[in-house]
Amino acid sequence: MPDDLHMTPDEFRRHGHDVVEWVAAYMERVRELPIASAVRPGEIRGRLPEAAPEEPEPFAALLHDLDEVVLPGITHWQAPGWFAYFPANTSGPSILAELASAGLGAQGMLWATSPALTEIEAHVLDWLVDLLGLPQHFKTAVGPGGGVIQMSASDSTHLAHVVARDRASRAGAPIDRLVAYSSSQAHSSVERGARIAGFSRVRLVDVDDAFALRPHALREAIERDLAASLVPTIVTSAIGTTGTGAVDPVAEVADIARERGMWHHVDAAWAGSAMLCEEHRPRQAGAERADSYTFNPHKWLFTNFDCNVLWVADRAPLIETLSILPPYLRNLPSESGEVIDYRDWHVPLGRRFRALKLWWVLRSYGAAGLRHHLREHIALAQELGRRIDEHPRLERVAPVSFALVCFRHRQGNDATDVLAAAINAHPNLHVTPSTVGDTRFVRLAVGQTRTTADDVERLWTAIARAA
Amino acid sequence: MPDDLHMTPDEFRRHGHDVVEWVAAYMERVRELPIASAVRPGEIRGRLPEAAPEEPEPFAALLHDLDEVVLPGITHWQAPGWFAYFPANTSGPSILAELASAGLGAQGMLWATSPALTEIEAHVLDWLVDLLGLPQHFKTAVGPGGGVIQMSASDSTHLAHVVARDRASRAGAPIDRLVAYSSSQAHSSVERGARIAGFSRVRLVDVDDAFALRPHALREAIERDLAASLVPTIVTSAIGTTGTGAVDPVAEVADIARERGMWHHVDAAWAGSAMLCEEHRPRQAGAERADSYTFNPHKWLFTNFDCNVLWVADRAPLIETLSILPPYLRNLPSESGEVIDYRDWHVPLGRRFRALKLWWVLRSYGAAGLRHHLREHIALAQELGRRIDEHPRLERVAPVSFALVCFRHRQGNDATDVLAAAINAHPNLHVTPSTVGDTRFVRLAVGQTRTTADDVERLWTAIARAA
Repeated sequence: MPDDLHMTPDEFRRHGHDVVEWVAAYMERVRELPIASAVRPGEIRGRLPEAAPEEPEPFAALLHDLDEVVLPGITHWQAPGWFAYFPANTSGPSILAELASAGLGAQGMLWATSPALTEIEAHVLDWLVDLLGLPQHFKTAVGPGGGVIQMSASDSTHLAHVVARDRASRAGAPIDRLVAYSSSQAHSSVERGARIAGFSRVRLVDVDDAFALRPHALREAIERDLAASLVPTIVTSAIGTTGTGAVDPVAEVADIARERGMWHHVDAAWAGSAMLCEEHRPRQAGAERADSYTFNPHKWLFTNFDCNVLWVADRAPLIETLSILPPYLRNLPSESGEVIDYRDWHVPLGRRFRALKLWWVLRSYGAAGLRHHLREHIALAQELGRRIDEHPRLERVAPVSFALVCFRHRQGNDATDVLAAAINAHPNLHVTPSTVGDTRFVRLAVGQTRTTADDVERLWTAIARAA
Repeated sequence: MPDDLHMTPDEFRRHGHDVVEWVAAYMERVRELPIASAVRPGEIRGRLPEAAPEEPEPFAALLHDLDEVVLPGITHWQAPGWFAYFPANTSGPSILAELASAGLGAQGMLWATSPALTEIEAHVLDWLVDLLGLPQHFKTAVGPGGGVIQMSASDSTHLAHVVARDRASRAGAPIDRLVAYSSSQAHSSVERGARIAGFSRVRLVDVDDAFALRPHALREAIERDLAASLVPTIVTSAIGTTGTGAVDPVAEVADIARERGMWHHVDAAWAGSAMLCEEHRPRQAGAERADSYTFNPHKWLFTNFDCNVLWVADRAPLIETLSILPPYLRNLPSESGEVIDYRDWHVPLGRRFRALKLWWVLRSYGAAGLRHHLREHIALAQELGRRIDEHPRLERVAPVSFALVCFRHRQGNDATDVLAAAINAHPNLHVTPSTVGDTRFVRLAVGQTRTTADDVERLWTAIARAA
């Protein structure tokens, strides 16, 4: 065994250039690869040796297996024919920022453990407050609120429930009396986050014909709970539900939350990106009065997973819930109160430099460039919606929302499932079959980085042929 | 504005090679850079424009600012003179795996959304079960337990508390009666995780002279709580505390936990890596009976942050707590029960391909190579301990534990603080001043990837001169 097995900087150069080439070639060929992995359960594991290797393997073996073992097991979220789920789109600057961040290997648990990690994050999230038309008090530079990068919207939504729970507990409410609310169409992370936070009562409130929360139903649920001596604690509004892209009446929910002293969390995980375009901001009216707001640049803003943003209107209750200071983390800048220590803003203590990719994406595209591409995706979705409306055998199940199109076959659920299967039988197209109520439907989200009008045309041809 | 602002594959090649060069050069020069960032609070933010740029900026501007804006704000965790906190060491293969993973941009929330992400993760964590000498039932391929990558040990410890809480709730215990236990020297993430999970009662149990939990004190605390009609629910044993590297009597805690029907969580966040070396395994005797065990390859196993591993002895209660299945996530492989859907194993729903770096690290070094480097770090720490023992003005405050050395100046706290400050005045050395009880001490963890005997010699010279 040689004395030093670490990859030298020169080896890193050589292998690094190979990996860059591999990724560039992947970008070139992903359009042609069958999107859905065709492996059977256990097939990938079956190609791996029973035990870890005892002796070092050359880098060439790793690269070889990237093609031979990994690639067959990848479902290609970065293919331009990806219309499934929501996008998890990426971009060159974001991928390269991940490389630079990994190379620096800095850890931003405290301001002092790498001030650039904290300050660039705080600053770029303040930029985004303006870009999304959110209120000034969400900015760390203004306060009392501020923004922080989390891993996922599930984490942020869970955390909102934890902070709301603690605020209610401090006011004397027993934890088993607390109630969390959202619409029945809210993302599963809302109910899940509430239950993880210890809420045993989660009310999924009725929705209207457009799948948006009915404020009247929310009021009724709250009244019933108050009458039963329960404590309404938090309500989540969705801007762009995962099911159909529905937008809850955020302003009315904000009114109700304020009346009842409840925490109001806004989940704009996917649709938040659209708020860069002023014409969509009326749909988030009322969000300026929210206690917390979350959106995912890692869905539809060309920024690699993971990158979720959580803003709070007031950082004090967040920090009060999460701050515990052991001696080995004490340091002068923290004690001066002049700096942000993001360790107190989320469940994890450690944190990598995720703001770098957001900063690089915002600068590489410019705000105008991001709006340009978002508007393009939205226009493509609107055009698809128009064609569906004109087609005699198809109908939308919900209004086209931002860049999400939900439709069905007029002959019913079976015909709709056949339609979805026929689209997904095209190796270079991928959509999600879903259900709302008893209705099966096909869910199309336009938003992969390289999706163009031609790809949407391919999709439409497949839909029309199958219909 | 041009029609398409996305970086083309050829532009990615060009810029990618520049970033690889930048990282390689960083590896070469990090030894010479002053470790601690010298910026003042607000200085980095002050260099950034007030608002996000409206127009696209060239990639060269980003690279330029990596040197001009970012680097002055980095505290260099990757410097070979880094002895502070615990290491967050990295390696070439790990950094390049982050690049490949970001380039693939796949999302592993479900097995079906990229089977390779799930199967390689499950398989490599099974490899690690053997490498760390943990029980076979921790393997997904054996069961009923299994391993999963989380973001941080804080997340895993929080989750253990949530699952233990729900298990107790299902057995009828009211949440405000539940009690969590650990030693007074456990990492702050234990108390913090318990409180986030809704435990209002957290007992920090007394320790012995080596800062390890006293089983007798644990028993007493449990008896007191039972007498008060409270419900002892979970106890955490530490293998290698953050303060001094203390190792709790895991087997005795396991006995107590079993007697009382409590969940037993083992936090080996840093020291878990040492278990690759058989000679250290006696220190985790009893861990084979734990309900959960966590360790961080991102601390001391040459794998970039974030990469934490959580194993559970039984995956059923974990999945029972975390599983909620909305219609858009339904799919055949999941319903067959043949596959793992890691979405049900942690708070986030989405997940990136973090197993790739762990797989690449294990293969690049081989198990023998990893043991070689771990033993080297441990030997260097032991040697430092011997020199401190021989020095008339210095004394250890705890036994050298794995690769952690804790010592003080015999003249007391002030002299110790002066000593720590004198070491940290060397721009290429960094240690953590800390406190245990009323005793100030200097905390040295050997574990940065490129730390050699020469670096430890430099450190010793600085210590001896200052003492």
